[in-house]
Amino acid sequence: MTYELYYWPGIQGRGEFVRLALEEAGADYVDVARGHGAGRGVQAMTTLMGERPFAPFAPPFLRDGDILVSHVANILAYLAPKLGLAPKDEALRLYAHGLQLTITDFVAEVHDAHHPISTELYYEDQKTEAKARTKAFLDHRVPKYFGYFEHALASNPAGPAHAVGESLTTVDLSLFQLWAGMAYAIPRAFADAEKRYPKLAALAAAVAKRPNIARYLASERRLPFSEAGIFRYYPVLDQAAKR
Amino acid sequence: MTYELYYWPGIQGRGEFVRLALEEAGADYVDVARGHGAGRGVQAMTTLMGERPFAPFAPPFLRDGDILVSHVANILAYLAPKLGLAPKDEALRLYAHGLQLTITDFVAEVHDAHHPISTELYYEDQKTEAKARTKAFLDHRVPKYFGYFEHALASNPAGPAHAVGESLTTVDLSLFQLWAGMAYAIPRAFADAEKRYPKLAALAAAVAKRPNIARYLASERRLPFSEAGIFRYYPVLDQAAKR
Repeated sequence: MTYELYYWPGIQGRGEFVRLALEEAGADYVDVARGHGAGRGVQAMTTLMGERPFAPFAPPFLRDGDILVSHVANILAYLAPKLGLAPKDEALRLYAHGLQLTITDFVAEVHDAHHPISTELYYEDQKTEAKARTKAFLDHRVPKYFGYFEHALASNPAGPAHAVGESLTTVDLSLFQLWAGMAYAIPRAFADAEKRYPKLAALAAAVAKRPNIARYLASERRLPFSEAGIFRYYPVLDQAAKR
Repeated sequence: MTYELYYWPGIQGRGEFVRLALEEAGADYVDVARGHGAGRGVQAMTTLMGERPFAPFAPPFLRDGDILVSHVANILAYLAPKLGLAPKDEALRLYAHGLQLTITDFVAEVHDAHHPISTELYYEDQKTEAKARTKAFLDHRVPKYFGYFEHALASNPAGPAHAVGESLTTVDLSLFQLWAGMAYAIPRAFADAEKRYPKLAALAAAVAKRPNIARYLASERRLPFSEAGIFRYYPVLDQAAKR
């Protein structure tokens, strides 16, 4: 069965965490809103979000036959066992879902750093507040989150190559995406991140080299980072961190 | 086995969504950080968050023997089937988890309405920005979220008494908490909410009348809402909405 991923076309956004899992596993999937023709395109997506039972609140969501799953962490928890990207043990699986939800929270904070007042306003209309929030984000929140993820790797009883257990999970793929996103959005503030978070840096490098991921990153299916996505490069915000 | 809930003492906060599920089910649990003596109190909680494998990022988390689960939605997805508060069908269970994660996102936005710049600063130090964010939150986000939840009830094929399926789930209990929290935090802006969201209002009233919930709400285990929690009553913010 072909998985149907629904997400805004044109940006990596939250959909990217799902794409990375599908691509790593070589799964058969369609990125519906990026397609054309019958049953494809943005309208096929917004139809499912309309006035009907079980409508998702927002993209991304995934359709697998009669199953409709929304929210990144929920989608990944559903897909991971089918794609061979979940720990087998229940306690580890619950731990992995907790990590994935911490990643979700981090992503929301990344977004709000450039949109601290309202998603209805442009960044340019909340630039002063964005600078203040980004400074607090870089000074306090990034060290807290990245320190936590670094510790998760360092304290993994199965070794620091993976966040959970002894093999690749969706958490590792998502941590790669956070790393790549931060390197794009705040190159100056993130320049010495490899020294501060060596195990995260090693994980990100290892994920990027996995054959299916490397092929995906080099393909046109991998959209570029941009100032319409979650991770945005605004030089004035990149200057905001303590040095 | 006694469930151990770990959350900051003194506030309802995010822990309350878990408490409501445990209380409704009459489950045997200990609110660890609110207790005293060996293995109790805040230190028992922070110890588990320290430099050890599988440490949670933040409270609330739940311990059930060898299982440690963090994040409200993860805890509720784990507990719900054991407490008789989950749909049996897989598709409905995934839908319920999606709703629970939408509730999670709403709670984060409630918090950020009074802390738009930094969690490291007091509300008083970000009051101007809080007013702007609260206005956007009340004008755009609350209608979007509450409209969505109202639609979830209205379009439930099993009827509008519950969000998912034909019996009570953790989603219903959490929606009650959102309703109670908004009524506390923005009494003026929320005064006519019952007209706008009649099915949500009816659900909240029905949950409050359930025998175990009514007993809990009248007990000292139910902490009061306060300006240290997620839902805070700041009159100046309550004035911010369009009328």
